[in-house]
Amino acid sequence: MNIDMIKAAAKRLDGNVRRTPLLESDALNRIAERRVLVKAECLQTTGSFKARGSWAAISALPEAERVKGIIAFSSGNHAQGVARAAAAHGVPSVIIMPADAPQAKINNTRTLGAEVILYDRAHEDRDAIGARLAKERGLVLIKPFDNADVIAGQGTTGLEIAEQAAEFGVTDADVLVCCGGGGLTSGIAVALADAAPDMVVHPVEPDGFDDVTRSLASGRIERNTRLAGSLCDAIITPQPGDMTFPLLQKYCGPGVVVSEEDAQRAMVAAYTHLRLVAEPGGAVALAAALYHAHHLNKDTLIATISGGNVDPTLFADTLQKFG
Amino acid sequence: MNIDMIKAAAKRLDGNVRRTPLLESDALNRIAERRVLVKAECLQTTGSFKARGSWAAISALPEAERVKGIIAFSSGNHAQGVARAAAAHGVPSVIIMPADAPQAKINNTRTLGAEVILYDRAHEDRDAIGARLAKERGLVLIKPFDNADVIAGQGTTGLEIAEQAAEFGVTDADVLVCCGGGGLTSGIAVALADAAPDMVVHPVEPDGFDDVTRSLASGRIERNTRLAGSLCDAIITPQPGDMTFPLLQKYCGPGVVVSEEDAQRAMVAAYTHLRLVAEPGGAVALAAALYHAHHLNKDTLIATISGGNVDPTLFADTLQKFG
Repeated sequence: MNIDMIKAAAKRLDGNVRRTPLLESDALNRIAERRVLVKAECLQTTGSFKARGSWAAISALPEAERVKGIIAFSSGNHAQGVARAAAAHGVPSVIIMPADAPQAKINNTRTLGAEVILYDRAHEDRDAIGARLAKERGLVLIKPFDNADVIAGQGTTGLEIAEQAAEFGVTDADVLVCCGGGGLTSGIAVALADAAPDMVVHPVEPDGFDDVTRSLASGRIERNTRLAGSLCDAIITPQPGDMTFPLLQKYCGPGVVVSEEDAQRAMVAAYTHLRLVAEPGGAVALAAALYHAHHLNKDTLIATISGGNVDPTLFADTLQKFG
Repeated sequence: MNIDMIKAAAKRLDGNVRRTPLLESDALNRIAERRVLVKAECLQTTGSFKARGSWAAISALPEAERVKGIIAFSSGNHAQGVARAAAAHGVPSVIIMPADAPQAKINNTRTLGAEVILYDRAHEDRDAIGARLAKERGLVLIKPFDNADVIAGQGTTGLEIAEQAAEFGVTDADVLVCCGGGGLTSGIAVALADAAPDMVVHPVEPDGFDDVTRSLASGRIERNTRLAGSLCDAIITPQPGDMTFPLLQKYCGPGVVVSEEDAQRAMVAAYTHLRLVAEPGGAVALAAALYHAHHLNKDTLIATISGGNVDPTLFADTLQKFG
């Protein structure tokens, strides 16, 4: 994984995914007591940054591989990205999703043309299921983060952040990234190390699922004790990836951990001040910028909103509790 | 009002308001059974297109006029645009708002630095109040639509639509615009007559407040019987403007009328498929594209989402009823 792979991915993605806006709001600046720029990946096609990595990976496959069809496991955002990219390349896809994934994500994945297979997140090993199905059907497995082309695709977000921040006159910032397995975080960090070397990337995770933050602190891969039971379904993974962790170690500053409640307050802030729909896991970085940036040094914070696929009932509940 | 005024306004607005994205979603195309491009003015600074017209008007004032301060009357979106533009130009603003305006809009207007004066929409004449205060305090009145610079500012939306649609390969379309007094609709229509002459603009209004549609049909200015009581607060005006109506007559096709319920269904569609927050009045054009386009001829529909300032309780109710 290097900057050249990210630049090559950016060329393959051009015209096939959106260049999402970087937005500033005076009201958010006041809450954070600092300048905050928001990279709105909830406006990405399929509603999350995952459209980038899956397109990058599927477009990089040799034709003879790709035609066999694609398989992926995902709580929903990678699912939609893979389903869309596979369909656009004219090949079938099978997506293994946790049975407790948001209904909106399951529905969208099916609508995008994928075959969806549900599993029990607490008791079954999605990697084992994926490997077995891939073997049985001859499908190509596109892992959600431990895949160099996927990381390169997510890293294109970082190239855009560097260019768009420069238009605001910003080259120096703490960059807060919603972090599950670390594909987006490591991709952005590799991109910014080249394109905006004064920026420091910080993974952001929800309370109780802070495997990356703890792993960065201890210097070795740490696991979460729970594997389910968070509103932040999009970024709940057992542990950092074998491929992402060394990149996170090399390129990132320390992680930031926020409560689910703060993620929900950030969802309301995005609703009120940016008119954007953020999902809980997609709002943790904004929560860190607004409520947990006291120990960060830079004058400007850049926060990704990584996705906006959230069931209407949960969004309504969040507005009623925190609006 | 002519295209040169709109182009001049675009120069004054450059760097001071956002160039909002034009978005396409396969899911929305399927619902409409046609190609739909959405101009997301809910992502405009202050959450609506009104930031354009108010900036255009205040920036066009002679310095000696502007320093006296600004007054405006508005249900909330023009209010926020004027408050922001006045503050950015370093001059005070007084905004006359209906007492039943969404609390979010009243709060935002105050936060932007304006003095807010509330009035009773059903029993008081906001024009008379505005004229009296303007005289008493020596303030400059910026009308919400019957002002050539305001219309020119709103018309910059049309220039962007023409450019962005061309990037999608679209030069021919029915363009659906949320319509109150007709400032946005007439501005876009004047812009497109020059920049994309094959496009046809249609004002869209809610049931019971269809003064523009009826006025276009009869050829003379028609009034609404009710002046309050709609969820679509942003686009409830007594009648088309003296300045906007001749422009609407000259440049627009027939109007489209949608129910409040369809506006709410369109809010949910924008939430689900674009991850955008639309207010009811800002969603009527998308409702027309999704549910009422049967009598429109063009292969492509372009719908504005004109604003996204909506109280959380109403948005939550809408998600629960229609999500």
